[in-house]
Amino acid sequence: MSVSLRKARTIIRKTLEKGREMELKPLSVVVLDAGGHVQAFEREDGASPGRFGIAQGKAYGSIMLGLPGSAQKARADEQAYFMIAMNGVYDGKVVPVPGGILMRDRKGVIIGAVGVTGDTSDNDVIAGLAGIAAAGLTGDA
Amino acid sequence: MSVSLRKARTIIRKTLEKGREMELKPLSVVVLDAGGHVQAFEREDGASPGRFGIAQGKAYGSIMLGLPGSAQKARADEQAYFMIAMNGVYDGKVVPVPGGILMRDRKGVIIGAVGVTGDTSDNDVIAGLAGIAAAGLTGDA
Amino acid sequence: MSVSLRKARTIIRKTLEKGREMELKPLSVVVLDAGGHVQAFEREDGASPGRFGIAQGKAYGSIMLGLPGSAQKARADEQAYFMIAMNGVYDGKVVPVPGGILMRDRKGVIIGAVGVTGDTSDNDVIAGLAGIAAAGLTGDA
Amino acid sequence: MSVSLRKARTIIRKTLEKGREMELKPLSVVVLDAGGHVQAFEREDGASPGRFGIAQGKAYGSIMLGLPGSAQKARADEQAYFMIAMNGVYDGKVVPVPGGILMRDRKGVIIGAVGVTGDTSDNDVIAGLAGIAAAGLTGDA
Repeated sequence: MSVSLRKARTIIRKTLEKGREMELKPLSVVVLDAGGHVQAFEREDGASPGRFGIAQGKAYGSIMLGLPGSAQKARADEQAYFMIAMNGVYDGKVVPVPGGILMRDRKGVIIGAVGVTGDTSDNDVIAGLAGIAAAGLTGDA
Repeated sequence: MSVSLRKARTIIRKTLEKGREMELKPLSVVVLDAGGHVQAFEREDGASPGRFGIAQGKAYGSIMLGLPGSAQKARADEQAYFMIAMNGVYDGKVVPVPGGILMRDRKGVIIGAVGVTGDTSDNDVIAGLAGIAAAGLTGDA
Repeated sequence: MSVSLRKARTIIRKTLEKGREMELKPLSVVVLDAGGHVQAFEREDGASPGRFGIAQGKAYGSIMLGLPGSAQKARADEQAYFMIAMNGVYDGKVVPVPGGILMRDRKGVIIGAVGVTGDTSDNDVIAGLAGIAAAGLTGDA
Repeated sequence: MSVSLRKARTIIRKTLEKGREMELKPLSVVVLDAGGHVQAFEREDGASPGRFGIAQGKAYGSIMLGLPGSAQKARADEQAYFMIAMNGVYDGKVVPVPGGILMRDRKGVIIGAVGVTGDTSDNDVIAGLAGIAAAGLTGDA
């Protein structure tokens, strides 16, 4: 099972709406499937050009390691070189900070991940969780 | 000048609608800005997981070289090693076949590119041009 | 849905057994999940050391493109530079010859891929299909 | 001399059995030959998809540097940038934590390495050493 394009669109739209409501800086949001492959992405006007890579890195690392961004950050805080090594293992596509959010089905199986970037990592998470909830799914940030 | 997210959304939706109308295989569509950076992307359900890379490669090569996919294909047909070298120069992100479409403003300045993949290259182009036209822009395929 | 480790083991063992029965050169066999990630791999004694990469490339390209090795070979035969570009897009992990075999569930959804290398591409396919059949699955070579 | 596929299978099976006996999280285990090339690999059901890269990185760094994971970790703890540089030198395939285990013959010559990942690094080592011992070899963790 993976997230449908329809749900991915809802997640992205509602994440961006939440960002506008909170008056955050321009956000970029990616939705990856359970294998870490890009399903949908949007970058708001005014965001810096390289935001796709950050959004992807937050979500891709979450999928590859089975750990959301906050757990990756905790590991990086205590053993930075390990998360740096993970970035090497996964070809530069691991960004170990909050904003990488896992999505699970009712049995707890990971069905995809969302990556949000643009404001503070904590605000990125709030917006992303709102988007995931709007699609009827539960996020693990 | 670059394409707004609003226009990018229109381009993607209308490209996908055209694909459904033509009964094409599931499509994937990326919109890049004038610097070749990802603005928006959607992959239809049923498409193979790696379609982001192909869509990006069609559009990114078009931006980097200032040549749409059909011109790249013509060059590849007569001098394959040159386009293969371009693929190396741009880190594997050049896919020299139709489906990479440049977008220009009224003065002819390139403001972005669209990459479409999923059906035959020629059908990918028809769908992409329909999407670009629906956003009030002119595509150079 | 993806292939379980138990099925992956059966596929590999039966592929290798078929290879011994046919008196093929030492084989190497990888099983990837639906996202293209390695589930299991074995390299027979006497095989050259780099066989993991070839087995992976045959199977990974099949997953990413949704096309088995023989279809990739047909494309490469008529438009070599396209498949070379695919190798660039997917970081050198596309080997477009027979021996990359897709596995589908009853609804036709791709649930993984097998990559076999060591003998002629055609013999690699025969052995791989025998392994997949032994696991109760259908291979699309 | 290198580890035979038969021994590699025993190592992997017994490592996984030890993990089940200890009730560890799902494990992934790779066996590399004396040149650092993949001989065999298995990922248990429920493990995150990217575990091959971590298992490989633990074992590959051990082979390339002639140092098991715990010695690499000691070096990383006192001079993180050095082990980060090693990750770059070896194309992202060095993961400097316990779980990379060298195997030696009776004369002390390195004949391969095992990489285990999935639980805590210390538990990964316990399981891996059990697997190596079951194959009649001595592990240097």
